Amino acid sequence: MGLDHAVTKPHERLAAVLSEEMAAVDRLIRERMTSEYAPRIDEVAAHLVGAGGKRLRPMLTIAAARMCGYDGPYHIYLASTVEFIHTATLLHDDVVDESGQRRGRPTANLLWDNKSSVLVGDYLFARSFQLMVAPGNLQVLDILSNAAAVIAEGEVLQLTAARDLSTTEEIYLKVVRGKTAALFAAATEVGGVIAGMPEEQVKALYTYGDALGVGFQIVDDLLDVAGDAASTGKNIGDDFRERKLTLPIIKTIAAADAEERAFWARTIEKGDQREGDLEHALGLMAKHGAIEATRQEALAWTARAKEALSLLPEHEIRDMLSDLADYVVARIS
Amino acid sequence: MGLDHAVTKPHERLAAVLSEEMAAVDRLIRERMTSEYAPRIDEVAAHLVGAGGKRLRPMLTIAAARMCGYDGPYHIYLASTVEFIHTATLLHDDVVDESGQRRGRPTANLLWDNKSSVLVGDYLFARSFQLMVAPGNLQVLDILSNAAAVIAEGEVLQLTAARDLSTTEEIYLKVVRGKTAALFAAATEVGGVIAGMPEEQVKALYTYGDALGVGFQIVDDLLDVAGDAASTGKNIGDDFRERKLTLPIIKTIAAADAEERAFWARTIEKGDQREGDLEHALGLMAKHGAIEATRQEALAWTARAKEALSLLPEHEIRDMLSDLADYVVARIS
Repeated sequence: MGLDHAVTKPHERLAAVLSEEMAAVDRLIRERMTSEYAPRIDEVAAHLVGAGGKRLRPMLTIAAARMCGYDGPYHIYLASTVEFIHTATLLHDDVVDESGQRRGRPTANLLWDNKSSVLVGDYLFARSFQLMVAPGNLQVLDILSNAAAVIAEGEVLQLTAARDLSTTEEIYLKVVRGKTAALFAAATEVGGVIAGMPEEQVKALYTYGDALGVGFQIVDDLLDVAGDAASTGKNIGDDFRERKLTLPIIKTIAAADAEERAFWARTIEKGDQREGDLEHALGLMAKHGAIEATRQEALAWTARAKEALSLLPEHEIRDMLSDLADYVVARIS
Repeated sequence: MGLDHAVTKPHERLAAVLSEEMAAVDRLIRERMTSEYAPRIDEVAAHLVGAGGKRLRPMLTIAAARMCGYDGPYHIYLASTVEFIHTATLLHDDVVDESGQRRGRPTANLLWDNKSSVLVGDYLFARSFQLMVAPGNLQVLDILSNAAAVIAEGEVLQLTAARDLSTTEEIYLKVVRGKTAALFAAATEVGGVIAGMPEEQVKALYTYGDALGVGFQIVDDLLDVAGDAASTGKNIGDDFRERKLTLPIIKTIAAADAEERAFWARTIEKGDQREGDLEHALGLMAKHGAIEATRQEALAWTARAKEALSLLPEHEIRDMLSDLADYVVARIS
């Protein structure tokens, strides 16, 4: 067991402990994704469910509920709700980003068309709201409907802030909350609410999910400038080539002199990128200490996530959630 | 007053009687449409709110609640919810239809881009769910989240059934329920629920909204083949040119012989339309009595809507809702 713990990733250990409930979540998702009348929904849904993915978000709901002593059945509904919101968001994201691939497979908008992705996404959103009503808990509805609004607002903000060099770290954080952290935070928070936990611990669950989500996204940014392509599967510089304002780039631009600003305006704003630009960009990040500063920030968010867990009951799942927070940053160290 | 009644349209009379509440709905919509962080949301929202429209759907909620003796404040929230769902649907519809105009103004997807329409639509959906949670009534949440699913399912079905000559009247009805009737029915039903009406009357309100919505859509189809362009602002044959399977066309195809089927396959399925085809199509509809049969069907739905009202309390608003049902069909007579 000790060796197993050392070599298994924390989300895999969580999946093992929660396998029965995750199987129930999977069944409920498959059942609710289908449509009696519109076969296109079933086709797109089968493509998405088939693609698998780690189901990290619904697992956070199940983990939080179980850690708080809840034994069902509504955590299954809420976990499925969370996955539906996530899947709907992915469908719409792929339309907005004009993506052709996700998880190594062609995206739905490429296999069918943008129209199907927009409308099946809407269908999954509607399904998620039907599912979240099932437990009959108004606090849960507040949390999840607020999260849906924060997600959409963050996506719109990301769209308008794209390639805008005046993007601040504050705006970056709003976008990241929308893109990732809002749903992580709602996922863990509703697990505590459905278990009937007191307010302080519900708040701690929110903080854990939020900090884990922000840390996760910051590490994703870092892997693009300082990752190991062999182990991450990500090529260095993809974000730079796509002209994304990631945290290390925002920090580097904030410290730029006039000449450096002109470089960023040409490469990010205008998109005029030439041979050697990526290396120059990486050099500027190093020069201004932006990579190390970003790494410290990711560590601070992880520490915040783990600290929040200390307010929650002792439990083997709590230890796994703590390991999960460490694991997120371990990807870059 | 008598003369006024004779010359004023029923929805205008309703708007006059409910003017105070409709102003409150308008205020709440403007307040909830804004975003602190993403200015694009405010721009798109201002464009949509500025476009006006009759606000028929939220008015149905207010009318139903008031007719059932409800005095507030939650009908304002529910009416706003209904309008948000409608507006979100319009934004996504314009992306799916690749529309350039709505209500005589350029659509949001043309003024900004499809991305903004998709994401601001999602934001309005999320806002609608936040609003519908406010009254703390689980039955209301069931009704509205189910309506959202029926709407999305109907839209997907419409997408896949488009230009498919085997589309039956049953499929047509499912699409129409999704496109129009589901939100009309939910709008009136939640008005009764929030007023605490007994089940039989809540059901009657659902039936009224559903039948009004289906009748409304059938009449829209009819206006395209038998309307008066001067009074409707719609050109005869637009649906035919856009290769839409409207109810008169579905009925005409069902009665077609082999030669006629070939005509429909060429014009609707393949989209190969030539000079004189519209006249030929109109001739076939007349030959098979499809226009008169469709008109009878619209009248039957109106009668169903008015019959449902007889189960509801006597009230001046009830009379106006009855007139509204008549008015829907009067557009074609």
